[in-house]
Order: sequence, then C-alpha cells, then structure tokens
Amino acid sequence: MILDEAFKLFFEKGYYGLGLQELLKRCDIPKGSFYYYFPDGKNQLLYEVIERTYTYMESYIVNHLLIEDNAADSFVKMVDHHIATIEGRKYTASLMLTRLSIESLHLNSEAHQICKNVYERWQNVYYEKLMQYGYSESVARQKAQALFALIHGSLISSFVKQSNEDLILIREEVRNILS
Amino acid sequence: MILDEAFKLFFEKGYYGLGLQELLKRCDIPKGSFYYYFPDGKNQLLYEVIERTYTYMESYIVNHLLIEDNAADSFVKMVDHHIATIEGRKYTASLMLTRLSIESLHLNSEAHQICKNVYERWQNVYYEKLMQYGYSESVARQKAQALFALIHGSLISSFVKQSNEDLILIREEVRNILS
Repeated sequence: MILDEAFKLFFEKGYYGLGLQELLKRCDIPKGSFYYYFPDGKNQLLYEVIERTYTYMESYIVNHLLIEDNAADSFVKMVDHHIATIEGRKYTASLMLTRLSIESLHLNSEAHQICKNVYERWQNVYYEKLMQYGYSESVARQKAQALFALIHGSLISSFVKQSNEDLILIREEVRNILS
Repeated sequence: MILDEAFKLFFEKGYYGLGLQELLKRCDIPKGSFYYYFPDGKNQLLYEVIERTYTYMESYIVNHLLIEDNAADSFVKMVDHHIATIEGRKYTASLMLTRLSIESLHLNSEAHQICKNVYERWQNVYYEKLMQYGYSESVARQKAQALFALIHGSLISSFVKQSNEDLILIREEVRNILS
C-alpha cells in the first residue's frame, strides 16, 4: 500500500514534491510503520518504487504484449494496447520511469545508476524479442532502438495531449520498420 | 537571469522542488525584485520558463537544424547535433519540456493546457517542414510523428544513459522513414 501511494505521489510531484507527511496521511499509517519498512527513508522508497514499477511493466510487456507469432504483430499489439488505454490515464508506468529518470541525473549517483540500469534492461527486452524472432544481432539492435523510441516517444506526446492520435499515426511505421 | 536560474532549478527539482528561497539565493536578489517581475509568483514563473524554453528551441530547430536541401539531410543533421552534444549535458530544452509536461497533468488545468499547446506547436514544426519539402499532407502528418517520436525518444534514453549510442542507432532509421 505504501508503494502504491508512493508511486502516485512520485508521479504527481516528483522526488522533491513527495512529502512524508502527505504520504503517511494518504496511507493512514504512523511514521513508525513507514520507517519499519523503509529504514533508509525517502531514497529507499524511491528505489523500491522504481524497481517495482519496472518489474511490473516488463512482465506485462513480455506476458501480454510481445506474444504474437511475428515481430510486427507483437509490436503493433503493444501500440494498440496504448491506443486503447492512454486517453484519460493519469498514471502510466513507463512515463513514471521517464520522469524519475530525467530527475535522477540531478539527484544522486545511486539514483542515476538505478535509472540507467532500468533503461538498459527495458531496451534489452525489445532487443531480445527481436533476436527470438530471428533478426541478426546488428539489425535487432537498430530496430529495437527505433521501436523503443517510436513507441515511447509517441506515448509521451499522447499522454501530454490526452489523445491517442499520435499512437494511431505510428501504427503503420512500426510495420515499415520491421518490413 | 531569474528565468535562466528557474530553468535550471525546474529541471533539477521539478515544479514542487523549486523553492523560492533557493531561487532568490542563486540569483542573489531580494524577494521584492522577484515579485516585481513575477507578481503572480511561481505559476507565472513556470509558464514563462516553458514559453521561453520552447521559443528558444523552436528557433534553434528552424534556423540551425532543419536547413538542408532535403528532408533526410535535415533530420539527420538534427540527430547529428544531438549525437555531438548529449554526452555530459545536464540540461536540455526538449527534456525540460518533457518532464514539466508530464508533471503538468497533475498540476492545474492552465499548466496542462500550456504544455499541450507547446507539444502541438513543436510537432507542427516537423509537419510544416515536411510539407515544405513536398510531402503530401497525410504522409507529412505520419512521417512527422514518426520522426518526432524517434528522435525525441532516443534523446531521452541517451540523456538518461549519458551516452550517444541510441542516437547513433537511429541515424539510418531516419533515412529509412523518409525514403
């Protein structure tokens, strides 16, 4: 419950905006309970929220999205998932990782290292999938980056505009990249 | 000077993390001077920083990057600019707009509207350029979104990893999209 509320609060207000008082109030728990689970305080909370958010997202990608017989259908499925769900969304795992990762560079080197590592694992999921679909190493590397940037970049602008139009626009480009 | 320091502080700490005391100290000015220029306080400061950052960025894109004889050379020039400058960068106009735009959804409707508007103008620059290069309206719309997402998405991951590798990987895809 603490991690769920912290996810929302970090998303809404960032690392500096998350106040412990507000978090305790939202969770309706005393300070002691918080420090029982998070003896190292706000930094530990941040790292656990990032790890949990990433693990959840990766498992969703692998188990529900990139599951079709060929690469194009799998990545279009991912785009279609975002097309169907982005409007009205106020929280999204991938955007949470993006906003905290940009912040992390100015936070401390441990936070930055954790975020850098998350990006490497995340992009590696795309690469490994393309390898499984039979692409050569160098082609998989290039296509994985193109798909990652194309989908993630469009997810950001769709989220900001609260409209799925940008995601609809790239549906065909995903197939072009893989053809 | 206030806007320069506010840009950095918003980038480092976000809307909630920017404390007026810290800003005044960095600028070495009294509170009265701040309210003389920003009678509406922190929100006005945020809106002016966003507008100024966007205007600067758009003018740089139009006057220094998308200036070649054909679309592919222009957009590769943009990628090459980021390849040459991203490593070691701690502040970047486009990432500033991204992080504040994600935050704006939870801030207030005026801030969100301003960020939405910035994204629309920003993406329109890509679209208008492709129209000038002779693409039809519907193709320009689709290719503009693909290029925007591809470049911006790769800029984010390159910034987080403080490495230009992801940008180098998409250089060829930019040409593929426009071929």
